[in-house]
Amino acid sequence: MNFPTVGVVGAGQLARMMLGPATNLGINVQVFASSDDDSAAQVTDSIVGDYTDELALLDFARSCDVVTFEHELVPQNVIRFLEKHGVKIFPSAETFIYSQDKIAMREKMKQLGLPNPRYQRYDSGVPNLSFPFIAKAPQGGYDGKGVWVIENQGQLDALPKPLLLEEKVDFSHEISIMVARSPSGEIKTWSPTLTVQRDGICIRTVTPVPELPRELELQIRNLSITIAEGIALIGVMAVELFQIGNLIMVNELALRPHNSGHWTIEGAVTSQFEQHLRAVLDLPLGDTTSTADWAVMGNILGGNQTDMFGHYGLLMARNPNLKFHHYRKEMREGRKIGHVLLIGNDCELAGLEREVEYAVDYLSGVINE
Amino acid sequence: MNFPTVGVVGAGQLARMMLGPATNLGINVQVFASSDDDSAAQVTDSIVGDYTDELALLDFARSCDVVTFEHELVPQNVIRFLEKHGVKIFPSAETFIYSQDKIAMREKMKQLGLPNPRYQRYDSGVPNLSFPFIAKAPQGGYDGKGVWVIENQGQLDALPKPLLLEEKVDFSHEISIMVARSPSGEIKTWSPTLTVQRDGICIRTVTPVPELPRELELQIRNLSITIAEGIALIGVMAVELFQIGNLIMVNELALRPHNSGHWTIEGAVTSQFEQHLRAVLDLPLGDTTSTADWAVMGNILGGNQTDMFGHYGLLMARNPNLKFHHYRKEMREGRKIGHVLLIGNDCELAGLEREVEYAVDYLSGVINE
Repeated sequence: MNFPTVGVVGAGQLARMMLGPATNLGINVQVFASSDDDSAAQVTDSIVGDYTDELALLDFARSCDVVTFEHELVPQNVIRFLEKHGVKIFPSAETFIYSQDKIAMREKMKQLGLPNPRYQRYDSGVPNLSFPFIAKAPQGGYDGKGVWVIENQGQLDALPKPLLLEEKVDFSHEISIMVARSPSGEIKTWSPTLTVQRDGICIRTVTPVPELPRELELQIRNLSITIAEGIALIGVMAVELFQIGNLIMVNELALRPHNSGHWTIEGAVTSQFEQHLRAVLDLPLGDTTSTADWAVMGNILGGNQTDMFGHYGLLMARNPNLKFHHYRKEMREGRKIGHVLLIGNDCELAGLEREVEYAVDYLSGVINE
Repeated sequence: MNFPTVGVVGAGQLARMMLGPATNLGINVQVFASSDDDSAAQVTDSIVGDYTDELALLDFARSCDVVTFEHELVPQNVIRFLEKHGVKIFPSAETFIYSQDKIAMREKMKQLGLPNPRYQRYDSGVPNLSFPFIAKAPQGGYDGKGVWVIENQGQLDALPKPLLLEEKVDFSHEISIMVARSPSGEIKTWSPTLTVQRDGICIRTVTPVPELPRELELQIRNLSITIAEGIALIGVMAVELFQIGNLIMVNELALRPHNSGHWTIEGAVTSQFEQHLRAVLDLPLGDTTSTADWAVMGNILGGNQTDMFGHYGLLMARNPNLKFHHYRKEMREGRKIGHVLLIGNDCELAGLEREVEYAVDYLSGVINE
């Protein structure tokens, strides 16, 4: 019955959340996991291997019609090796670099004429920026890891080089927008999302961004389209932004489904996960309209709470609208192990946020009743 | 991490569609399949066996926290055997009989004071009903199979006995309502659905039922609650009804997720599949509010079209709102192999129906462009 197999390198929650839409569409998903216990490997076919091993990945790719990523860690030379051997892999190495190398990303934004904070690549010597500023490892950072506030030369000297240095932006909000682009050049954007951070980790998203002026929303949508076209994106991408009054600046790119797009599962006609599958399979993209006035997503972070299932009862009874997503990952302090989502119409946003906050606190053990 | 395993006897599309919500909730699903190729066995853990083999099922049940059904075919004595051995199985044998035996169902409706057509159990002799009437095999019928219009005594004599005879009801519409009940007695109903039949097979559902008077809607919801309580339902149930002007009559019961509830996947806050899992796990039930003004579901029936995936492109381009569900079942003439769904707000129902009809005709090979 000629249904294709999508190979996903990585088997975390992002791969796991592709399975629902894949099963609906009849598409097979195979994941390249680091262990049988990985979030997605628990629920679909998997091959366990090392994603820096080009031959292992080539072997994996040969049982797939197309290969994509759910993390940024596959080295460029490995992606290029697969491409050289005729593997259909999206995004391409040339495109994916902007998700892997923050310096390359900054240079690209500059070339596209998009708003960057002041930045420099730094290897040694006296920096062009004045203290304090932000230093980022060009590769591999996430959830606040690989990002430092630098107060003086000594702190700068202590970090491994090269670094991306960026001015400390005095933003009022952090906003993210998901955008999808298919090989045919079709592009869709979802409603921009407010991301609320604590200690460098996103704890909550609110969609749409409350009180975002219409012009700024359009500017954000257009900016994401400019990037998607400028880097020849295939798949979905999160564009993370700083809002400073009526200005926006690009913060980071993630060329894959992203935490700030989880609200789309219930909150949009087509989720980021279905859209990613459509894009890498060269299918027409789905509608991205929101299904409700508000969608509030709360991340469940690993804490001292281990009995997840036992805690569903109270929350389901408290709020029959709450949607649960548990990734079945090993519990680690501060690690994203699940999320909850609440959509609402004709209601106060504050009430939805309160419910989501309660659910998250209860599931991560902050509230114990 | 103490997540339970739900065992599902049967591995067709109904079990398959439980996997999405199960994966979201972190719940494990194991299916008792007749073959590794079964729709759900392709995408989750399965044990292959014969569902009339009580020891095989007991073995299966021992690796599950709770067992439920996706078809009516498990014999009563097998269910009772499992119950005697302490297996938590929902619905219970005592309840499930009303999904398995149409004569028992009619007697129960009568006892509950609910509107039946005139009917009789028939073994031999002159029937109480006048020709023409409907004869039904008490067990095992579906999609028009096991149902006959009887014009004369000769036709009646030719059928295996016992039979359930029912007057031919001159209904204007067929309506179905999904209802869920949990062990705690909590009950939720979804919006009643119009089911459009062709040759005894449902080809389309429309939710809500167009122009259904509010009093009739309430009567239908209340009737489904009366049945759910009256038979001590645990899980979800479809109550299929005849509408005759301002009257309704019970047609059939199905004590499991049902084709007439597929619209709830995208069309309601909580789908019938998530609700069934919640109910059998004794969790509070989810909200059943519709997410849109209209939900139109169209069944894709097996025809001469075998290239399903290759036909997605045109339909996705034609309508980015269309949701696809492919069951990955072997193609057989007239067999339900998938469905499509369209939800809509502030739009003409006729337009949605037209789009769904086009998609279904195109996917089953009636339209060839």
